[in-house]
Amino acid sequence: MVKQLRYGVVGAGLDSFIGNVHRIAAEFDKTCVLVAGAFSTNPEKNKACKEFYELDDERVYDSYEDMAIKEGAREDGIDFVTIAAPNRVHYSVAKVFLENGIHVFCEKPLCFEEYEAEELKKIAAEKGLLFGVNYSYSGNVMVKEARERILSGEIGEVINVNAEYLQEWLIDDVEAGEDTMNKLSVWRKDPKVAGISNCVGDIGTHIEHTVSYMTGLTVKRVAAKLDYFNQPLDLNANILVEFDNGAHGVFCSSQVCVGHMNGLVVRIFGTKGAIEWQQENPNVLYVTKKGQPTQVCHRGMAYMSEYAAELNRLPSGHPEGLYVAFANMYKVWAKALLKKKNGEKLTEKDYDFPTVDAGVHGVKFTHACVESSNQDAAWVTI
Amino acid sequence: MVKQLRYGVVGAGLDSFIGNVHRIAAEFDKTCVLVAGAFSTNPEKNKACKEFYELDDERVYDSYEDMAIKEGAREDGIDFVTIAAPNRVHYSVAKVFLENGIHVFCEKPLCFEEYEAEELKKIAAEKGLLFGVNYSYSGNVMVKEARERILSGEIGEVINVNAEYLQEWLIDDVEAGEDTMNKLSVWRKDPKVAGISNCVGDIGTHIEHTVSYMTGLTVKRVAAKLDYFNQPLDLNANILVEFDNGAHGVFCSSQVCVGHMNGLVVRIFGTKGAIEWQQENPNVLYVTKKGQPTQVCHRGMAYMSEYAAELNRLPSGHPEGLYVAFANMYKVWAKALLKKKNGEKLTEKDYDFPTVDAGVHGVKFTHACVESSNQDAAWVTI
Amino acid sequence: MVKQLRYGVVGAGLDSFIGNVHRIAAEFDKTCVLVAGAFSTNPEKNKACKEFYELDDERVYDSYEDMAIKEGAREDGIDFVTIAAPNRVHYSVAKVFLENGIHVFCEKPLCFEEYEAEELKKIAAEKGLLFGVNYSYSGNVMVKEARERILSGEIGEVINVNAEYLQEWLIDDVEAGEDTMNKLSVWRKDPKVAGISNCVGDIGTHIEHTVSYMTGLTVKRVAAKLDYFNQPLDLNANILVEFDNGAHGVFCSSQVCVGHMNGLVVRIFGTKGAIEWQQENPNVLYVTKKGQPTQVCHRGMAYMSEYAAELNRLPSGHPEGLYVAFANMYKVWAKALLKKKNGEKLTEKDYDFPTVDAGVHGVKFTHACVESSNQDAAWVTI
Amino acid sequence: MVKQLRYGVVGAGLDSFIGNVHRIAAEFDKTCVLVAGAFSTNPEKNKACKEFYELDDERVYDSYEDMAIKEGAREDGIDFVTIAAPNRVHYSVAKVFLENGIHVFCEKPLCFEEYEAEELKKIAAEKGLLFGVNYSYSGNVMVKEARERILSGEIGEVINVNAEYLQEWLIDDVEAGEDTMNKLSVWRKDPKVAGISNCVGDIGTHIEHTVSYMTGLTVKRVAAKLDYFNQPLDLNANILVEFDNGAHGVFCSSQVCVGHMNGLVVRIFGTKGAIEWQQENPNVLYVTKKGQPTQVCHRGMAYMSEYAAELNRLPSGHPEGLYVAFANMYKVWAKALLKKKNGEKLTEKDYDFPTVDAGVHGVKFTHACVESSNQDAAWVTI
Repeated sequence: MVKQLRYGVVGAGLDSFIGNVHRIAAEFDKTCVLVAGAFSTNPEKNKACKEFYELDDERVYDSYEDMAIKEGAREDGIDFVTIAAPNRVHYSVAKVFLENGIHVFCEKPLCFEEYEAEELKKIAAEKGLLFGVNYSYSGNVMVKEARERILSGEIGEVINVNAEYLQEWLIDDVEAGEDTMNKLSVWRKDPKVAGISNCVGDIGTHIEHTVSYMTGLTVKRVAAKLDYFNQPLDLNANILVEFDNGAHGVFCSSQVCVGHMNGLVVRIFGTKGAIEWQQENPNVLYVTKKGQPTQVCHRGMAYMSEYAAELNRLPSGHPEGLYVAFANMYKVWAKALLKKKNGEKLTEKDYDFPTVDAGVHGVKFTHACVESSNQDAAWVTI
Repeated sequence: MVKQLRYGVVGAGLDSFIGNVHRIAAEFDKTCVLVAGAFSTNPEKNKACKEFYELDDERVYDSYEDMAIKEGAREDGIDFVTIAAPNRVHYSVAKVFLENGIHVFCEKPLCFEEYEAEELKKIAAEKGLLFGVNYSYSGNVMVKEARERILSGEIGEVINVNAEYLQEWLIDDVEAGEDTMNKLSVWRKDPKVAGISNCVGDIGTHIEHTVSYMTGLTVKRVAAKLDYFNQPLDLNANILVEFDNGAHGVFCSSQVCVGHMNGLVVRIFGTKGAIEWQQENPNVLYVTKKGQPTQVCHRGMAYMSEYAAELNRLPSGHPEGLYVAFANMYKVWAKALLKKKNGEKLTEKDYDFPTVDAGVHGVKFTHACVESSNQDAAWVTI
Repeated sequence: MVKQLRYGVVGAGLDSFIGNVHRIAAEFDKTCVLVAGAFSTNPEKNKACKEFYELDDERVYDSYEDMAIKEGAREDGIDFVTIAAPNRVHYSVAKVFLENGIHVFCEKPLCFEEYEAEELKKIAAEKGLLFGVNYSYSGNVMVKEARERILSGEIGEVINVNAEYLQEWLIDDVEAGEDTMNKLSVWRKDPKVAGISNCVGDIGTHIEHTVSYMTGLTVKRVAAKLDYFNQPLDLNANILVEFDNGAHGVFCSSQVCVGHMNGLVVRIFGTKGAIEWQQENPNVLYVTKKGQPTQVCHRGMAYMSEYAAELNRLPSGHPEGLYVAFANMYKVWAKALLKKKNGEKLTEKDYDFPTVDAGVHGVKFTHACVESSNQDAAWVTI
Repeated sequence: MVKQLRYGVVGAGLDSFIGNVHRIAAEFDKTCVLVAGAFSTNPEKNKACKEFYELDDERVYDSYEDMAIKEGAREDGIDFVTIAAPNRVHYSVAKVFLENGIHVFCEKPLCFEEYEAEELKKIAAEKGLLFGVNYSYSGNVMVKEARERILSGEIGEVINVNAEYLQEWLIDDVEAGEDTMNKLSVWRKDPKVAGISNCVGDIGTHIEHTVSYMTGLTVKRVAAKLDYFNQPLDLNANILVEFDNGAHGVFCSSQVCVGHMNGLVVRIFGTKGAIEWQQENPNVLYVTKKGQPTQVCHRGMAYMSEYAAELNRLPSGHPEGLYVAFANMYKVWAKALLKKKNGEKLTEKDYDFPTVDAGVHGVKFTHACVESSNQDAAWVTI
């Protein structure tokens, strides 16, 4: 029985903070071992990665196509690839690995275009490969706790959703005009590099996924107003949403809200209660049952649901942060993939990671928001 | 020189909590003395009020028309009337007092229909009478502090607004259907009694006014989705807004959000900073300047602006609550009216109370939201 | 049946913020009417008060002795006196009013010396007069809610107490040395004027009373370390306490803790749960039952205890602040005094105001803390 | 030049959550590689660890003495040992590794007895070995930020300290009596196994160290009241402290405070400002400068001090939790040890890990608290 997975990475050079997060997270449970990579198109940087990660020469590739082909052909080739490369190549990278029979765990967004998304989905299905998309906030134990409670009916039918993801880091762009370029964000403002949306694509999709994951609902249509402030791509978005159960809500996504660092906050209101989760204080869940006081629920306590408790790592009051959220993404992913490799049948519960379907929906959501805004916030059905 | 104002009340019988709030608030500074009233159409209740308020027999009236006429004719008649009667009679009551030359301080909403609102405005102008509308949250010192700071440019140009007013008290109505009537809210669900909107009219307008008061901006158009849950009037509303400076934002107004008591929260985002105020913790203002940590500003501290400091009553850390907000409404109102009665010219600063213009805009805002929702959230210009 | 009480005030001139708080609070329920006063020893200021309060010439006195004698002799004399004069005269004022048969409602501290405190208690008992001491924080509805819950056993036996009252306003005194005098606090640093303690006497006693009121426990002994920072009186105090049930705890009282305005925070820990109340956010109570999430309980909700609900004035989420706490002090006091005047027998529940016993204990507590600190924090039994 | 350290572990079997935290943390920066271990005295469990950690057979030892001797003798022996074994063997384990020339990184407490502590310190000095004690909370970036700010004088001279570490997990022991044993805590209640103190030794020492680390001050003497609730060891402690600069404060340490998970909260008050840090929300620092609003400072922002910024890993708003705090402990430790191994001279800044001196002081602090409590809270000088 296979107990450990070999994996490779595309992207995630040493100067990318997210690359190191992936490396550490994947190793948390010792179920995934890094054995190959195409970290950078710059050979020097690639070599530095090889040394840092202590990999064999022959398994560090200067091109991801090369890596896909060679790893696909090796007896001891990688079981899956983590794609942490720039968003603009997600599609191409994912495609070539799928085509070479390698399971894919891809950073979000899945890709830029809807047809690309659908194609990736199709190939994965045809090849019988698992495809995970790293909407990492769903790795937080308390997000899973929220999901367990909502799906079990604890807050009744969902009737209203209020969710936001507010950041401040691009505020200087608002008054920058065309000439000045905020160094940090230069690639995010170029549609060729960033896709058709900056703010919605980058963080609005996290709202969309976290809400859907927590509630089991799907966003059916959107009426969005995106603000560009004379930049090529959006920096701020206010979005009316309608879910498949008929409930409405708002998603507010911004990179220009001073005072907010990484403020993903999700509030789900139901007929029997409400649940709130805040990414910056991720170990707590606020649960209110109709007519009762709000309960401040802590991760790690005996009152947690069975499934969330299973994924819990530290005692209550000992903060689990971003690395743990990522580690949980890998834990769930690796568990499913190990089952598959060992010939076991995957149950619905095993698919507790965002699949390519979530990725496809994220791409469609982004396009719908941009299209709606272009039509002065007319409703666009996803 | 007149130093004290005589006033009367229409509505606000002893079983109305808001009536007693008005009485106490008006007396805080001893500038207003209650001398007359038409508290109830029920003579017994009216008499009980007379005794509680220790008024002369002849100045407690069973009809407000009677009161308007007689008080208007008395040498020592009331200087102004406070209208705290049911919303459906605001228009009629205000009109008859204006016609009898009496200044009006009216609970919000000003009235139901736009033509009524415009008519009241016209009469007040013709008669040279002051007309205040009690959007009481603008009486909070820290709301005034926010206004001072925003108008002085502290947060730069406003680029995004996120404001909400969430309550939970009508949650039982969501699943009540047609037959069952939530006792508390029965009149609020009847369009004849409550006007065309329940949730937006009652609390959404508070969002609209507080934001406008803080920022000096005007809501130009709205795209609103109101939820009725099979009731005759709205219980929940998510509204995209566009301001006259081009900024966008969302207003979320609800009476069915479990876990929220009276949660008016206003967040104003500008090019240089941001300001947040929460009604349930009204003595604090959260101020963030670009690139700096959020500052938790307390009412009563030396760093307050001059004008807000003038209205401050208690040392920092000694909570001022709803009664004080109301008392400040009366303080500003009485100061302006005393100036007028003493023949002084009112400056723009004296009009630091919501005038009939604010009332008119509130009525238009409510209608625009309902109309927009009826057109599936199409933009409606106010 | 008497329904309204006449009262007079000693102290509380127009430049004292607390005087106006008393006036407004006493009028909240229209059970107390101000008819007399000796507001200031400065005749001009006294006259200004007379005009502001609209009192008869003959009932505004330049000396409190005069007032006590004359009001005691009048047919329509005051039912009780509110003492809001400087602390150093509390004893003398209280004594002369008691001696003239007038009930006393005295600001805290009751007086400076233990023998004075005992004497006042004795006179009140002999004369059969009610004596209230205005530990105003116990007027907060949620403090009463805490008391109801703790006395009913909701958190089990109390095993630990952690309470603090932190302010920052005297921080400049720490480095001021002997020559410079902080203007605001000059009288507080003179033992002849302020008594033997500044910080413990002024705010430490509020901790002591609030904890005792909430729990029904009595502080039996203290081990205190007071910090003087070269000033004549204490500015900071850390106190170990032992209660009559054997439980221990700490009281921290300070006027030099930067960042804290008026931070009375009381946390009571029991065998079955815990309760926390914060004065600056007084409408909320944090209740935790063993093994369960902390509950954020709001004033005004249906889950409040019967007695606290009775005293509730505003719907949940509409903040009650300091004026309301004072108004509740008067409400409970007036209810008891009206009963007494109407010849009814007072039950234990009627004594839900801090009596002279609480005042006596406060004086003893202050002396014990100073004595302990003088003995390098040796235990001193109260 | 050596770039990576080989290390071994004593204790930390697979059922110990802290063992896995050490493994993950040590690998964060790829500076430490696990190559040996004596994980358990149970050979089966030891073997399971060997497999999980993928170690060579010959480097997994059934006895720590064996490991110390053999690793000390190997050419490629471990550079340091991490001691995560039960507290009662810390002394013996540390001693034998030191004697075999191996650097020691030991979980806190260093040991039980003062003479043991002094002996370990002496041996380390004689052998020229580094000795770290894992007071892990000092690994939090914002604790380091607090230290940088306080040592640079930002809050002036420290005049008062209020720190607490409150947990609830042993609440059932309060009423358990002698017969019943709380399964979780059984060893903690046996002085032979847990040392002379449970609550102070386990978590009170964290308060002591965190405060000393942040401020550079040393606790000079204590007056402590420990509560045993009929158990052999303390479950609750309230402690007056005096620092070497003359300032006073309180430390409150408890495992029976319902509603508190792992609540280490440190508040340092100075003549010019104050700083607060909360372990459960570790990415934030509350900084108040005299006369100014409290600033909510976020890890990862440009306003961080240079040193804290160096240790920062994730962008602001992306929570770093307990694993990162541990990783930072290892980072600082490994950096110093690598310097030493490479023949560089260590500067004071390199010793930014708790050394054996901190460990010694912690042992003395615990003894002083117990002794003080045995003498009814008399002062005991450390």
